[in-house]
Order: sequence, then structure tokens, then C-alpha cells
Amino acid sequence: MQRYFVAPEQIGGRIVTLTGEDARHLRVVLRARIGDAFIACDGLGRDVLAKIAAIDQGSVTGEIVEELAPEAEMAWRVTVAQSLPKGDKFETVIQKGTEAGARAFQPFVSQRTVVQYDERKEARRLERWRKIAKEAAEQSQRSIVPEVRPICGWDSLVRQIPAYDLTLFCYEEEGRGGKGLREVLEDFRARAAFGTKEPNILLIVGPEGGFAPNERDEALAAGAVPAGLGKRILRAETAALYALACLAYESGEMGGIARA
Amino acid sequence: MQRYFVAPEQIGGRIVTLTGEDARHLRVVLRARIGDAFIACDGLGRDVLAKIAAIDQGSVTGEIVEELAPEAEMAWRVTVAQSLPKGDKFETVIQKGTEAGARAFQPFVSQRTVVQYDERKEARRLERWRKIAKEAAEQSQRSIVPEVRPICGWDSLVRQIPAYDLTLFCYEEEGRGGKGLREVLEDFRARAAFGTKEPNILLIVGPEGGFAPNERDEALAAGAVPAGLGKRILRAETAALYALACLAYESGEMGGIARA
Repeated sequence: MQRYFVAPEQIGGRIVTLTGEDARHLRVVLRARIGDAFIACDGLGRDVLAKIAAIDQGSVTGEIVEELAPEAEMAWRVTVAQSLPKGDKFETVIQKGTEAGARAFQPFVSQRTVVQYDERKEARRLERWRKIAKEAAEQSQRSIVPEVRPICGWDSLVRQIPAYDLTLFCYEEEGRGGKGLREVLEDFRARAAFGTKEPNILLIVGPEGGFAPNERDEALAAGAVPAGLGKRILRAETAALYALACLAYESGEMGGIARA
Repeated sequence: MQRYFVAPEQIGGRIVTLTGEDARHLRVVLRARIGDAFIACDGLGRDVLAKIAAIDQGSVTGEIVEELAPEAEMAWRVTVAQSLPKGDKFETVIQKGTEAGARAFQPFVSQRTVVQYDERKEARRLERWRKIAKEAAEQSQRSIVPEVRPICGWDSLVRQIPAYDLTLFCYEEEGRGGKGLREVLEDFRARAAFGTKEPNILLIVGPEGGFAPNERDEALAAGAVPAGLGKRILRAETAALYALACLAYESGEMGGIARA
């Protein structure tokens, strides 16, 4: 069934109102009629099933039939912090990362970030990234549109680390000798009273050229844990999706022991 | 260090010979000199460390210094069978799937495959796909170049199923009630004498429009096991990478219990 992300104020107690592109899509593209059903999501976790009560030129009014339980959200709240990669690769990270269940994206600039960061372009780029997150959330039938935060500097990212229950520092060499992601997650499970609440996890992915040694030291000093993603060298734009799949797997949404 | 995939016959007992593009790359782009080291891989699992003994116009001769153990291969041999997706998305599947450790790719056509399959274009396309696999294998520092097989029909794919130790049938609805991938893998571990040899796993990913019910029945009758990839709808080109990450995680290369 068609899902639309709308502003929270468009979903009332009994009525939901679609406007603009969404109304046009339902009316013109899907040729919906009175009585047809659709799903509206406020992007913060409230999903409602509605039946069309009125179709006007610029809006569609639906009567709320049912409040739906969010079904497609990962039990772990994962923020992907990624050093801004080249070209339009961050768009890929947002699109695939949203499908994979990320709750937020925090692009950052570190010493070896290759791209030129252009402040003037940022507002427009951020707008585009947020649009990609919204569309990917619709497509993957999520209830939450991941937040895309403005680009920050390395120091600012490091200061965010203590606010998370676990910060995973994906470091290229870790897969070849250090602790692997699974070992880290199992240690964390053993240490924390896991499962009693949604843990907040920060996943830090470096630039194409990797992190500088002092950045690694700073992240670890702030509480980040190095975590290896296996034996192969992953591209910058692949690493986040790869790690998110593992987190979803370990969070229990593919069955097995984690659910027990 | 620079790695080159060469034909097996280019690596002898003591000498490795680079020719064509590889020789040019080492000579012109990297400006290598006598005594500089490089790695040559035969793509079948033999990696050697060599030191340059001679540089000629069209070739570079290296003296083999050491036979290297393949380090970047997943312990599980995974073949990705994917219904041919739209546009150039299969190129993404090959590139990312190679990074993720797939051993082979088997494109297939099923009832709801959207693309027009054009036999005349196939030879050229297959050549391009194999080039992408080779480049991705070099980039991710693998020892094996995954095989890219010619496109086959659904019936032919179903006939291949019994040859595998486990066939995972990634079916959209399974994440929402059926058995999840982790549960399936744990069942398989419990049943098979897992870990005594490299299991051969076939991962079947459907087209954008999903599988037809009779296709599901046929796959299951041949021994495939439905496996859910979680609660979100994944794009056709995302599913294989997502599942491969989970298989790498469960295979033990990120530490934890699976390794014990």
C-alpha cells in the first residue's frame, strides 16, 4: 500500500490531510477514489492507515481507520558518522543506509577527507540528502525518516562520542588482527544490560585514505571501540551498509539467538 | 602494495611475468624500479610477493620472494544468484558483492525479471561484468577473482540447487513472520558438520517484482530454504550485499562465538 511521509501536524486525531505532491500523486498517478486506503507516517514513528473521505484539487482528506505499529525499525538506534566521501557517494550511503535501518547520518570532515568542503553549497546539498533519506524511507517502508545532520568537524564528532552507549570505530587494520565487530558486540552485550532499552550506537566510518593515528587515539580516548569489518578492504561507501547489515543481524531482526 | 591479477601461467616456480596494462601500470604510473616489490595473484588463490628483476618495454619480470597465504577470502563459498535487475544495477551487485567476498555470480531470468534479455548483447556485457569483478577483487585485496557466469533461465538455476550445501531463498515476506537468516544459519550449523570444510552456499535474490508463487514452490522443492533479511524492504541491488555482510559476520571473520 502507498505510504506518504507528512508533517506531524497533518495527522490529527481522526483525520489526515495530504497536500502538494502527495495529494497529486494519490489523485493523478494512482487515480485514487473515495474509500481507497493509504498509509501516512509522520516520520517520527507514528503510522496511520486512512481511507479517503474527500478529494479536492489541492488536497486529499483521509479518515484514520487504524494506528499502525511501526514494523520496519531496527531495535538498535544507529547513527552513521561518515567522513565525507568523493563525488556523490554520500548519497549512496544515505540511500542504502536508510534501507538498512540507520536512524541518523552525521557527515564529518577529518584530516584525510579528500573532498573540498564548500560551505556555500552546504545548504542545498543538505536539502538534497534529506530528500534522499525521505524517499529511501518511503521505499523501504520505514516509519522513521533518518535525520541527516549538517557536516561537522572531527573535534565536534569526538565530543559526541560519550553520549552514545557504544561507539564503533571502523578501522581498516582491525579486521586483520584486532577485535572484529562481532566480538565487540558480544563484549558489549555482556557488559551492558542489553535488551532492556534501545541502545544508541554511533558507527564511525573513515575517509578513503583512512584515519590519521592521532584521530584514532582521540576517538578511543573518548570511548570509541575499534571494530574490524572482516578481511577485505571495503570502499568508503560500502562500509556503512556492510556494518549496518551486521548490526541488524545482531540486533535480532533476522531471528536466532539474539532474539531469545 | 600493488596487486595484479595475472593468468596462472604467468606465475612460474621462481619467476612472475607482467605484460600489457599491468606492466605499463607498474612501469609508467608507479615508476617502479629494479628491486621494487609487487604482489601477483593468479585469481585462483595463489598470491606471490615478487621483486622486480627486469623492466622491458612490454613486460616486467619479477623474482618470487614469497608465497603468500590468501588472507582476504571468506571461509564460506557464496554464489550470488540474482535475477537480472534494471539498468546497470547488476554492475553494482558485482562490484559490492566482490568486496563483500562472493565467490561467484549467477545472473538469471525469472518470470518477473523486468529487463529485456538481449542475447546479442550478452557476450559484451559478460566481458564487462568480469572486468568489474577483477577490478573489485584487486581493490579489496582478494586472492580470488569471483567467477561471473552467463545468464541462465529459472529452470536451470533450480537444477543447480541440490549441488549446494545450503541454498538461501531471500523472499521478501520472510522477514515479516517467516524464518530469518540468522535462524536459518543456526539451524544449518546445528544440522551440518559445519566448520570441517568450506560450505558451498547459494544465495538467491529475486527481481524488483519478487518471485512468482510457483517459483518459490519450485525452489523450496529443490531444497532451498526461505530466509528473511529483516524488516525493511531492500532494493534488488542492495539485498545481496546486505546478505553477504551477514554471512561474513556469521562465518566468523569478525570474531566472536562463530570463531570459537
